Amino acid sequence: MKRNAKVSTAVIRRLPRYYRHLSELQEAGVVRISSSALGKSMGLTASQIRQDLFCFGGFGQQGYGYKVDSLKEEIGEILGISRGHTLVVLGTGNLGRAIIQNFRFSSNGFQLLAAFDINPGVVGTRIAGVPVYHADELESFIAAHRVDVGLLTVPIAAAQRMGDQLVQAGVKGIWNFTNYEISCARKDVVVESVHFSDSLLALSYMISQRELPDQQEENQ
Amino acid sequence: MKRNAKVSTAVIRRLPRYYRHLSELQEAGVVRISSSALGKSMGLTASQIRQDLFCFGGFGQQGYGYKVDSLKEEIGEILGISRGHTLVVLGTGNLGRAIIQNFRFSSNGFQLLAAFDINPGVVGTRIAGVPVYHADELESFIAAHRVDVGLLTVPIAAAQRMGDQLVQAGVKGIWNFTNYEISCARKDVVVESVHFSDSLLALSYMISQRELPDQQEENQ
Repeated sequence: MKRNAKVSTAVIRRLPRYYRHLSELQEAGVVRISSSALGKSMGLTASQIRQDLFCFGGFGQQGYGYKVDSLKEEIGEILGISRGHTLVVLGTGNLGRAIIQNFRFSSNGFQLLAAFDINPGVVGTRIAGVPVYHADELESFIAAHRVDVGLLTVPIAAAQRMGDQLVQAGVKGIWNFTNYEISCARKDVVVESVHFSDSLLALSYMISQRELPDQQEENQ
Repeated sequence: MKRNAKVSTAVIRRLPRYYRHLSELQEAGVVRISSSALGKSMGLTASQIRQDLFCFGGFGQQGYGYKVDSLKEEIGEILGISRGHTLVVLGTGNLGRAIIQNFRFSSNGFQLLAAFDINPGVVGTRIAGVPVYHADELESFIAAHRVDVGLLTVPIAAAQRMGDQLVQAGVKGIWNFTNYEISCARKDVVVESVHFSDSLLALSYMISQRELPDQQEENQ
């Protein structure tokens, strides 16, 4: 597959959305879709869609649109879904437990290997079939298994320390739910953070704008 | 406060990050910060920082940098933090419960009024002090209270239906955690979605790129 070397962060951020939309279209039995129809369902223009996908070698056929299944497969390939990435969860509080029980790791190409905690009430148990080990065993576990990503849902006070432990143990990425901006000295380790508050504040901004009657025109 | 009318989505998305960073700086006792130091801690260039803040009237003083507390306060004002927004939660499964118990709504200027569910085991109870009502009472509750935002953590199958109910009842925004792309015909209602899978797939992409030895140079 030919890909343009320079892909912007904005395009990368949209790729998972394409994948999600194409999965929904596939489930709904759609075989082929035009860039304008795909754009409409995603809130993008047809031209943005064509530009985005062109970054990755362009999959569309002039006048025919895109084949849903092969486009989904190719984007999944780019996203690394078939690479068999593995993951462990650090912290089995409410949020950790919610993610372990409900998140579809396998649909996203990830295998959840284990969870770690320090709470004696949960260490040694299983959550939705996933074994929970003591955090002290993290390093030896990662040494013995290939672990690509560590998901952090520990309390803020432990976030940086556990992040450092993950990096030292050799993970390639940290999926950070701690609402703390983890710093990572290693350039080859990716930190991807999910900040709920950033999302709520963006929503707060948008509804606040709509409440300003004199600015409605210019801010829409 | 003077603001430029046209503010890009990218800038809006960065505002909550500024707010979060400035809060951390304030807690750490930092009084004044230069745009380059602020940029460094946020992974942005000094020029990006100046451009972003200029969109909202520009708060810096040449050569003096930014006063942390007043910049934080002004950005908070733009984000609508002082507007006293209110919110209800629909769905008290693992994720809903985790958010009710752990998310700091008040730090983000939101007041959590109530939660709704259909599970008889939880209706009539309180979660972290928040009363849980039956979903049938949603409409009358919203009619009786000013509710700005509905947080959706219901199962995917109920996502669109409950989203429609929220819109009909008169909320201004939906904070959507269902991993389903809710469609909303009303242009004045904002849907802000948190898609965990989009975040994990972006991480998957980034670590996959770093695994390709021949592309490492050009993709970094």
